[in-house]
Amino acid sequence: MRIRLDIAYDGTGFRGWARQPSLRTVQGVLEAALHRIFGAYAPGADDAHAPAPRLVVAGRTDAGVHAAAQVAHLDLSPEQWARLANDRRAQRDGDPASGLARRMNGILRADEDVTVTASRTAPEGFDARFSAVWRRYEYRVADDITGYRPLDRFNTTPVRGALDVHAMDAAASTLIGLHDFAAYCRPREGATTIRTLLDYSWHRDDAGTLVAGVRADAFCHSMVRALVGACVAVGSGRLAPEEVAQLRDAGQRTSEFKVLAARGLTLMEVGYPADELLADRAAQTRGRRTLGDGAPAATT
Amino acid sequence: MRIRLDIAYDGTGFRGWARQPSLRTVQGVLEAALHRIFGAYAPGADDAHAPAPRLVVAGRTDAGVHAAAQVAHLDLSPEQWARLANDRRAQRDGDPASGLARRMNGILRADEDVTVTASRTAPEGFDARFSAVWRRYEYRVADDITGYRPLDRFNTTPVRGALDVHAMDAAASTLIGLHDFAAYCRPREGATTIRTLLDYSWHRDDAGTLVAGVRADAFCHSMVRALVGACVAVGSGRLAPEEVAQLRDAGQRTSEFKVLAARGLTLMEVGYPADELLADRAAQTRGRRTLGDGAPAATT
Repeated sequence: MRIRLDIAYDGTGFRGWARQPSLRTVQGVLEAALHRIFGAYAPGADDAHAPAPRLVVAGRTDAGVHAAAQVAHLDLSPEQWARLANDRRAQRDGDPASGLARRMNGILRADEDVTVTASRTAPEGFDARFSAVWRRYEYRVADDITGYRPLDRFNTTPVRGALDVHAMDAAASTLIGLHDFAAYCRPREGATTIRTLLDYSWHRDDAGTLVAGVRADAFCHSMVRALVGACVAVGSGRLAPEEVAQLRDAGQRTSEFKVLAARGLTLMEVGYPADELLADRAAQTRGRRTLGDGAPAATT
Repeated sequence: MRIRLDIAYDGTGFRGWARQPSLRTVQGVLEAALHRIFGAYAPGADDAHAPAPRLVVAGRTDAGVHAAAQVAHLDLSPEQWARLANDRRAQRDGDPASGLARRMNGILRADEDVTVTASRTAPEGFDARFSAVWRRYEYRVADDITGYRPLDRFNTTPVRGALDVHAMDAAASTLIGLHDFAAYCRPREGATTIRTLLDYSWHRDDAGTLVAGVRADAFCHSMVRALVGACVAVGSGRLAPEEVAQLRDAGQRTSEFKVLAARGLTLMEVGYPADELLADRAAQTRGRRTLGDGAPAATT
């Protein structure tokens, strides 16, 4: 049985998503909670030695990157599933998986920076990583016009000077489409850097903070932060708007702009197709990745 | 010469606004920065022994309460003023006071939770506390419907259960007007509890968080958090909407509702009259407070 988890976290206190020995990571904290629920349960039961469930995630975020709506899945043995099904509130909800979020959050209470916002039985064919059709990120920048806002400091990157948001937005729009983003990716042996950038725009929110919305089928490593860095260089006049697409087409990593800090970056949403298309999409993505592409489905 | 400062802070790490020996407070941190700028300057100068400027504030916030737009003023001696006037960038701005925010923020850089958003020469008759005509606060509550959002945890108070925002908003509107709010104030010897509540409403924001907007000429101690607690009791069904006005009219402190935590409370805005009315307003408020009313112009 497969369960879908929706997860939110403040990345400040984590060394990223992926489990690492002796470092505090989101996956590590969540799997430790799963271990307390499923791992050390009912000695003598059929699956007393079944391993605790592991998580497969839609967007493997780097150290310091936040998530408003991360998605992951886990698989349970029939015996583990039966334990969830015994939960009385879950029975009332009609989905035994619905109680898992509550149980995990009970254990996570001391970890105020991560929470499971929902848990449910995954539809047939669902794979958090391979079924996803797009990931949407937001990047927040405060310049001299914005003014510094202490309450938003954990998910906003401060920059000096005043940025021209119209130039930034114009530059961003020239990057949209199916392209080789090698100039905007940290290289990875044997991994393709061809991606479809679906949306990329900049605006100021009500309080004056510069907000970038970036959506793509998938991102290669540090890609969002490079795309953001290039447009900030445009906003401050160090690059002309048309240069960001020229740099992309040159296909070489460059020092014309900086890869901005993880701090301002938040995974906002993961898109999946309609339920009946989930399995097809997963098979398709998995096939594509295997054809000489070892890239993760999405990193930051 | 009088200077107006606009200030923002995350109250989590402060023991409130008011200076206290050996405790970290907003006033304490800001006055220490002023001391570094004006106090230890130019030995041998005419005002080498002039005291460092002290701050007078619009809303003395309690421990843990935040501010998006606090207002304070300070007075400078002619010699202190002359030092500001020498600042080249301030001369370009046309207001010698404009550079003070920059200088203070340079010193405050390590204090990421407080910033001076603006500094300028105060108009004739301006008094941050006594010229103010209203204060506006926001209170944020996350219930089971909202879902917990780790990135907003420092300025949102979590409550269990699902709240009825329509009932809360209906109850809030019955409290508006000129009334004795003794039932909603922590008592203070010799201080009046009569206030004009100008606005009080509840809504859910885009993300589902319950947000209260509360505006009054001034607030007595813990008044916003009591008003919020009463409406949360309505939202969870423990009080009927009509009871919140009945409790107010009974004029007695009650255990029917809880005073909610400081954590969810933020001072959003301070209202001042047009420049030509500032001095009149200050004289009027000062007179009223002196007539047997020792209450501060605004606390939380």
